[in-house]
Amino acid sequence: MRHLLSILDLTVEEIEELLTTAEDILDHPDKYQDACRNKILAALFFEPSTRTRLSFESAMLGLGGRVLGFHDAASSSTRKGESVADTISIVSGYADIIAMRHPKEGAPLVASQHTRVPIINAGDGGHHHPTQTLADLLTIRREMGRFDGLTIGVCGDLKFGRTVHSLMEAMSRYKGVRFILISPKELAVPSVMLEELDRNGVPYLECQSLEEHMGELDILYMTRVQRERFASEEEYQRLKDSYILDSDKLRGAGERMIVMHPLPRVNEIDPQVDEDPRACYFRQAFYGRYIRMALILKLLRERGEAPATPDKGHPAYPVNQLPGAVCKNPHCITTTEQGLKQIFLRNPENGECRCFYCESKAE
Amino acid sequence: MRHLLSILDLTVEEIEELLTTAEDILDHPDKYQDACRNKILAALFFEPSTRTRLSFESAMLGLGGRVLGFHDAASSSTRKGESVADTISIVSGYADIIAMRHPKEGAPLVASQHTRVPIINAGDGGHHHPTQTLADLLTIRREMGRFDGLTIGVCGDLKFGRTVHSLMEAMSRYKGVRFILISPKELAVPSVMLEELDRNGVPYLECQSLEEHMGELDILYMTRVQRERFASEEEYQRLKDSYILDSDKLRGAGERMIVMHPLPRVNEIDPQVDEDPRACYFRQAFYGRYIRMALILKLLRERGEAPATPDKGHPAYPVNQLPGAVCKNPHCITTTEQGLKQIFLRNPENGECRCFYCESKAE
Amino acid sequence: MRHLLSILDLTVEEIEELLTTAEDILDHPDKYQDACRNKILAALFFEPSTRTRLSFESAMLGLGGRVLGFHDAASSSTRKGESVADTISIVSGYADIIAMRHPKEGAPLVASQHTRVPIINAGDGGHHHPTQTLADLLTIRREMGRFDGLTIGVCGDLKFGRTVHSLMEAMSRYKGVRFILISPKELAVPSVMLEELDRNGVPYLECQSLEEHMGELDILYMTRVQRERFASEEEYQRLKDSYILDSDKLRGAGERMIVMHPLPRVNEIDPQVDEDPRACYFRQAFYGRYIRMALILKLLRERGEAPATPDKGHPAYPVNQLPGAVCKNPHCITTTEQGLKQIFLRNPENGECRCFYCESKAE
Repeated sequence: MRHLLSILDLTVEEIEELLTTAEDILDHPDKYQDACRNKILAALFFEPSTRTRLSFESAMLGLGGRVLGFHDAASSSTRKGESVADTISIVSGYADIIAMRHPKEGAPLVASQHTRVPIINAGDGGHHHPTQTLADLLTIRREMGRFDGLTIGVCGDLKFGRTVHSLMEAMSRYKGVRFILISPKELAVPSVMLEELDRNGVPYLECQSLEEHMGELDILYMTRVQRERFASEEEYQRLKDSYILDSDKLRGAGERMIVMHPLPRVNEIDPQVDEDPRACYFRQAFYGRYIRMALILKLLRERGEAPATPDKGHPAYPVNQLPGAVCKNPHCITTTEQGLKQIFLRNPENGECRCFYCESKAE
Repeated sequence: MRHLLSILDLTVEEIEELLTTAEDILDHPDKYQDACRNKILAALFFEPSTRTRLSFESAMLGLGGRVLGFHDAASSSTRKGESVADTISIVSGYADIIAMRHPKEGAPLVASQHTRVPIINAGDGGHHHPTQTLADLLTIRREMGRFDGLTIGVCGDLKFGRTVHSLMEAMSRYKGVRFILISPKELAVPSVMLEELDRNGVPYLECQSLEEHMGELDILYMTRVQRERFASEEEYQRLKDSYILDSDKLRGAGERMIVMHPLPRVNEIDPQVDEDPRACYFRQAFYGRYIRMALILKLLRERGEAPATPDKGHPAYPVNQLPGAVCKNPHCITTTEQGLKQIFLRNPENGECRCFYCESKAE
Repeated sequence: MRHLLSILDLTVEEIEELLTTAEDILDHPDKYQDACRNKILAALFFEPSTRTRLSFESAMLGLGGRVLGFHDAASSSTRKGESVADTISIVSGYADIIAMRHPKEGAPLVASQHTRVPIINAGDGGHHHPTQTLADLLTIRREMGRFDGLTIGVCGDLKFGRTVHSLMEAMSRYKGVRFILISPKELAVPSVMLEELDRNGVPYLECQSLEEHMGELDILYMTRVQRERFASEEEYQRLKDSYILDSDKLRGAGERMIVMHPLPRVNEIDPQVDEDPRACYFRQAFYGRYIRMALILKLLRERGEAPATPDKGHPAYPVNQLPGAVCKNPHCITTTEQGLKQIFLRNPENGECRCFYCESKAE
């Protein structure tokens, strides 16, 4: 049985296939309107995320399927101390596919070990959010017609921005892609990611000005810069307006550039930009529904005749049970899930040990 | 594309047509059970209102459609500071029609400027609640068989009662209608509304006793009187029981009179009255479902082949951008919605300026 | 019109029929997938209970029906002080069947007096939870193939455990059933229940050790023991581990014994037991969906051509209106429901008076 926990669970070919299906649904929605008749999606949102949830629900309804679920932990049994494992063991008997969001990193992996049905990770803390990346890719393909040869500006918090990191990883696979990395110094792309770009021969350029390279961009991907991420209040006051996109700053951009944003925004794009035909972020949210439709179809199809029993998750890789070791990431699911064993994986190449669940480095 | 923001968005003929459709659905529900197959209603309740929400959801399900949404702002992205405009820009890509309730007055008007699909106002603060008025009209037509020549008693808080004001406006259009306005002096109908009745030649009579004119009424429309609306605690203690309907007070009423109430009630109608065949308020709630079915059908039909792009709301009337003026109504959507320009409209007849969004007078 | 308020509303024959239907749905789900097409279930959860709610919703969706409702009182009109009677009067106009959970005992009985449609009690405080008992019975029939001649161990809080009491009552009707009652002394089965077993000639044995009779059991029904139920902290510390089932304690059990639990569990079954084929509690939750499908089908069928008017609940038994008497149970619906008259029923056999709503003894 297939799950989607991380974008790396999909090959490049599979992503291509999903994008092609999504575009076919966009162009011929009627063909698909009964594709999931009598199937049930459980939308299990252990923390609220309205847009993501509604996108999944609308996707399932658009395929003729049905939806149940909960919207935050307060209205779920977790309030009574129930583990993710137990919740999934039960709810996977009530649905054909599960989309789950959870504040703890690795929670969907735990879920995948206890489910009778496919799990889609709809965001686990700062860890993975693969359907956002898929929506971004569909947007680029639909709006630009290609992935190759694009110059992509990413702006904002490039240090902690999960969305941006995933997009960079995904786009690095295509030929001729080049990144302009626009951020305050405090929030620059982590060096380990830059080394990865170097290793893969992907050209990039770091700068602190949103306008400087505006004219070269095919895509400008905006993200939020949070006040508390700056070194000091003075630094924040000095820089805050530099990373707000408005019509003035957009003046230098090419006519066919597109502006993307994972939404919700707070103030990092002035609403006056919304009227600009290059503003693409609401279309991006719109496309998100269609890639989720394609994904639901794929996972339900591949579930096929698989026996309705959980995968009892012994990982496929070599496991190093560092005896007594405990994951130090406070956001890791191992910190809250009762009865979950600590597991670490050692990378045979560099000897690094990482938590099996949240993938953070063991100390 | 048509929206329903205020009852005034509908002509008398359109209201008649809606009532006729609603009665046809009441009499032949099976004919309509697939009328909205594959259509999605988004029920966006930025504040809770269970009965109204369930009425809309039941209406859509009864037409064979599907429903998604949220029930209060706490579980929506507005918690993260997202504007109404952005929420609607996104969600209107996930649904075919939107019913929204919002605590801020004018929020549905803002929504109508950013949506791809029809907006139904399911209540915006103390401003409009047009489907309640439609439900009231359907109740009167269904129970009385006519609108003309009715004597209508309205009782309770007539000063702030949005529901009562709308009903009075709507019923004033019919011949021979007469109002008995029953309230404590502090909560009498505002003089501007009485002048309107005078201008339209609608007879009315103000009194403070619920029983005095009971025998003359065709309809008794009850509303709640809130303690905090009284001038003093003594005044409240002296008067509170006068506006509670019980079997005793009902004794003087005609046999065919009906008692209406928008619900929920607290204590303004004694539960013993529920058994009386004249008690019509639960049937009134029941009819609410059917008028909403008729409305959803109408708006989806009229959306028809309209291009799926938002109306970028420059109002059709002459706009006076009183420079620097700011709406003083603390419940106006302009007080919270980021990036929303203040707009005032000047009435060419009397020179009065009103906020475009909440319609309160500029000072 | 039939409701299901307590398991005693069903005859043994009706329970048999429900179990047979549930097994048929389990074996041939496709046959039933449109059985409730165009029907609406209202899931009215005045307090949260995710698993029970999702089980009902999944049941209705699996029958081709639709679902609406609310998940806790905070998002319902009860926040505005609306009575159960009014909520049901309104919502029963929006749905074809209602499943309700309410913290107050007797609330579903009040609902049944004001509804147009069948009411299913999905739990009212510590009072009744008949669909849990039905799920337990289906589990036993499905897993053991019979009810007769079973030795059933029930372990944990046998004093307050509503689930366990219902199961004992239901199983006492079958031949050759025998109970092993395993609990700390403080939490032993109430003597009134033991007398009932004696009267019906059902053999039982009380003990304090989970392991002592393990080898004799066909079924081990585990429940939670709450810390605050113990006489003292020392007592709790001394005994707590005795009532936690783990692989060690399971060693003495027969190979075909099954372990049941109403879930959610906290720590009373060690997760290592989940892998044991005798662990039956997740299958038990799974079966819960199917018995609810059978129940919804039965009640909708029996509603049949019944007129759509509420039963105005004058009870069928002789009523003794103990004048001035007030129910002393703080969890009784009479303590909160506005306008609800106190009613007590006198048992002609022993002269005992009990509250009509919560069935607790009048003092």
